[in-house]
Amino acid sequence: MAEWKNLDTLKAYKALMESDHRVDIKKALAGDAGAERVKNYSVPMACGMTYNYAAKQVDEEVLGMLKALAEESDLEGKFKELYNGAMINTGEKRLVLHHLTRGQLGDAVVKDGIDKRVFYTGVQKDIADFAAKVHAGEICNADGEKFTTVVQIGIGGSDLGPRALFIALENWARANGKLLMDAKFISNVDPDDAVSVLKSIDVAHSLFILVSKSGTTLETLTNEAFVKNALVSAGLDPSKHMVAVTSETSPLAKSSDYLAAFFMDDYIGGRYSSTSAVGGAVLSLALGSDVFDAILKGAAEADKLAAQADPMANAAMLDALIGVYERNVLGYESTAVLPYAQALARFPAHLQQADMESNGKSVNRFGEPIDYVTGPVIFGEPGTNGQHSFYQLLHQGKTIVPLQFIAFKENQTGTDVVIQGSTSQKKLEANVAAQIVAFACGKDDENLNKNFDGGRPSSIIVGDMLTPETLGALLSHFENKIMFQGFLWNVNSFDQEGVQLGKVLAKKVLAHETEGALAEYSKLLDI
Amino acid sequence: MAEWKNLDTLKAYKALMESDHRVDIKKALAGDAGAERVKNYSVPMACGMTYNYAAKQVDEEVLGMLKALAEESDLEGKFKELYNGAMINTGEKRLVLHHLTRGQLGDAVVKDGIDKRVFYTGVQKDIADFAAKVHAGEICNADGEKFTTVVQIGIGGSDLGPRALFIALENWARANGKLLMDAKFISNVDPDDAVSVLKSIDVAHSLFILVSKSGTTLETLTNEAFVKNALVSAGLDPSKHMVAVTSETSPLAKSSDYLAAFFMDDYIGGRYSSTSAVGGAVLSLALGSDVFDAILKGAAEADKLAAQADPMANAAMLDALIGVYERNVLGYESTAVLPYAQALARFPAHLQQADMESNGKSVNRFGEPIDYVTGPVIFGEPGTNGQHSFYQLLHQGKTIVPLQFIAFKENQTGTDVVIQGSTSQKKLEANVAAQIVAFACGKDDENLNKNFDGGRPSSIIVGDMLTPETLGALLSHFENKIMFQGFLWNVNSFDQEGVQLGKVLAKKVLAHETEGALAEYSKLLDI
Repeated sequence: MAEWKNLDTLKAYKALMESDHRVDIKKALAGDAGAERVKNYSVPMACGMTYNYAAKQVDEEVLGMLKALAEESDLEGKFKELYNGAMINTGEKRLVLHHLTRGQLGDAVVKDGIDKRVFYTGVQKDIADFAAKVHAGEICNADGEKFTTVVQIGIGGSDLGPRALFIALENWARANGKLLMDAKFISNVDPDDAVSVLKSIDVAHSLFILVSKSGTTLETLTNEAFVKNALVSAGLDPSKHMVAVTSETSPLAKSSDYLAAFFMDDYIGGRYSSTSAVGGAVLSLALGSDVFDAILKGAAEADKLAAQADPMANAAMLDALIGVYERNVLGYESTAVLPYAQALARFPAHLQQADMESNGKSVNRFGEPIDYVTGPVIFGEPGTNGQHSFYQLLHQGKTIVPLQFIAFKENQTGTDVVIQGSTSQKKLEANVAAQIVAFACGKDDENLNKNFDGGRPSSIIVGDMLTPETLGALLSHFENKIMFQGFLWNVNSFDQEGVQLGKVLAKKVLAHETEGALAEYSKLLDI
Repeated sequence: MAEWKNLDTLKAYKALMESDHRVDIKKALAGDAGAERVKNYSVPMACGMTYNYAAKQVDEEVLGMLKALAEESDLEGKFKELYNGAMINTGEKRLVLHHLTRGQLGDAVVKDGIDKRVFYTGVQKDIADFAAKVHAGEICNADGEKFTTVVQIGIGGSDLGPRALFIALENWARANGKLLMDAKFISNVDPDDAVSVLKSIDVAHSLFILVSKSGTTLETLTNEAFVKNALVSAGLDPSKHMVAVTSETSPLAKSSDYLAAFFMDDYIGGRYSSTSAVGGAVLSLALGSDVFDAILKGAAEADKLAAQADPMANAAMLDALIGVYERNVLGYESTAVLPYAQALARFPAHLQQADMESNGKSVNRFGEPIDYVTGPVIFGEPGTNGQHSFYQLLHQGKTIVPLQFIAFKENQTGTDVVIQGSTSQKKLEANVAAQIVAFACGKDDENLNKNFDGGRPSSIIVGDMLTPETLGALLSHFENKIMFQGFLWNVNSFDQEGVQLGKVLAKKVLAHETEGALAEYSKLLDI
């Protein structure tokens, strides 16, 4: 059994905090030694990708201390407990099983008499069969015509991850004949969100997926009503256009309002549900179940690497350790995720959720207050766009923001143009290489307005191309990084009590059961 | 003449830093006094909007000190110098004239013999005439058919602002018969960005706007080549499908490659250019020049309010002062912008640019180092989506992040649905009211995992509906807030030297003129 202890009780952490050894990355990256460092400071990832941390403020001494921290914290042992079915989600007293949606890392996990791997693969099979029938036109609209659009109705984890993954693969799919249906997403309770999506589609040829584990998420049920109204207005039978992704115990599960129901359970949190039915249904319909399987394959390969004890062979673990070093020892408060791929436009928003909802905690996994900082603020936009925007602060601001670059050697569509002797793809890559060095090494200038101090740390993940496999591996990398950081901080990364209070108060406002400040805010808003 | 002094030389700032008076917003918002506070802590904004700061950590004492700071820093005088044509952009030795695109706040500004207000309104008139001809079909494609889509090719300021504004008004325009053309945007040098947009449109009926002040922006010229290839492949003459927005001295200005050229000048920075031809061309084509005029009208009204000396009547100034108090006195490092309107989905990204590129500086306006922190990290997503995502950290994380809510009393499309006794719009508003109180007041729970400390500050801007006018006013509010903060920090908010180094290094990479670490990064990326 792994021992769950607060970070500040660990010897290795105390050693890190007491050490005044600091790495000057400007110096570390200079000259031939700097070139050697870039060559050597790499860890292989799944699907041929690489995690390079040469521009991070670490060296053999710091890495040694981080390795000691990984051992003392028993990150490997904790992950093993997790994938073998221990009750890691202490707040809600639940297992944490999203890894099982993509592979069997350890023992069979049997819960309530059910082998959970069998359950998840069974649901995937049901979805694949359903999707195949939709694609073949066997499941079709009342006029016998094929469905051409799939619309996901969900919020938070039922929206951001699947949406980010679809956007990530849309161009790839079009270029490879894999875009079988268009996909759209409705999430916000703002009525204009649903109205806008409904205006943009042909409802007669659209299939809607209602995603709610409990079957009671207010935003989702409200948006379902919008969709049903639109279907009825168009003279259509909603039950012939809707599918549910929900838990077996939810009111939606056995309802005749849906063509089919695909099941999720309590052991996969919303933000970790992209590889469950939550992502599986919409992605299998839009891109085919073979593409969804390829995402799972990439994720499974990355999960396997994450199960290793040695952080120097485990990119997710090393990334997690360096992140904790930056947050707790160096004191950096936020981290920017900067993918040099337009297809990853919404990937930072998904990671923002995955990370901040998991580790934005002030109590440990036993509900006791902790005296050290936890999860950072996460934000980001694709490069090169960000270079013409907020990078100014990243380069010359008073605040140091650690950076996580992501880049690929080839673009997805295979189409490109040569201008000034290079393709756009090479320009894109040249920019990310240039940024790493600019941030780390800076440039001296007598005019301080044009001076760059450097010393701004970054890492980069490099892959050949953003494909279903590499996307799955990327997703898994970050999920596992966040998990390891939760282990280090000794927090429960799998509940989200912080979202509850707002819900309770919003109900009071709607019931006009308010007084004091809340009543005045309601007046201000004309509620 | 205003005196430009570093923040830490001001008496009022020293008084703020020395004071240990702190406002407990949980207490301040309690009971009847809390209700009174919500009523009173409001400043009227343009177009019927309101800035409410009752949940900020201020009271009469703090506000008095902030007012003294505004006076000592002479924020009113500095803004007056700016709009009267002083050389406020000290780095590039330029005037700062974006306010003139929407009104004449002070004296005529004559530069190089040209009255700049006359110049900007002249360009707006040219754009309006051109747009009217396009809408009437007088300017059309080779087959005599109307253009139905307008595509903006630009990056950074030529992309984020106009894109955010178009998205903000798309639903409103559709509901009001004002969506005259569809609008698309190509920005990233990633070739898949251009490929993807070109796949989604009918090039034969598309008009492209190339936006580059210098006419040399690499991303934009590269994407122009993509577009020209697509047009030529479709058997079309690119010069009959393209318009330029550029400076009069750029190579694009007199080129026969364009149907028309609309001019910008050196006195409007990219991130402040949404109300110039940069936003004007695409928005007038997509929505009509009357809609663009309405945006300008809202912005002009807000600019007038911003010219007042008293921060208690000047929401932009007060917002700026409270932001500096939070950043420099209370030590908060980031700020979240949280619009409760799906239409403002990309508005936070625009503000992220406007703010971080303007005030992410470490030297003052004279190029001297400064010893206090400047611009914060800005991020955000629309509510209620964010509530199911990163709000966990905002509520219960170890880091306090000041919040900027934005909400409206009515939705844009006029379509809604009643579920559980309330419309979606009322649910949306109820959620924002609830969040403010949840963040500020928290909730005690013996189970610390379910405990909310509260004390997390926010403000809210409330408007009747997101229309062209309120959108213009909102844009101006934030532009002026950022400007006042730049004045307080004594930085030049109008240059962006931090974006230069990356460009220089990227050119070296593409020319294979690299050594050391940069050469190794190039190898890693297969460049």
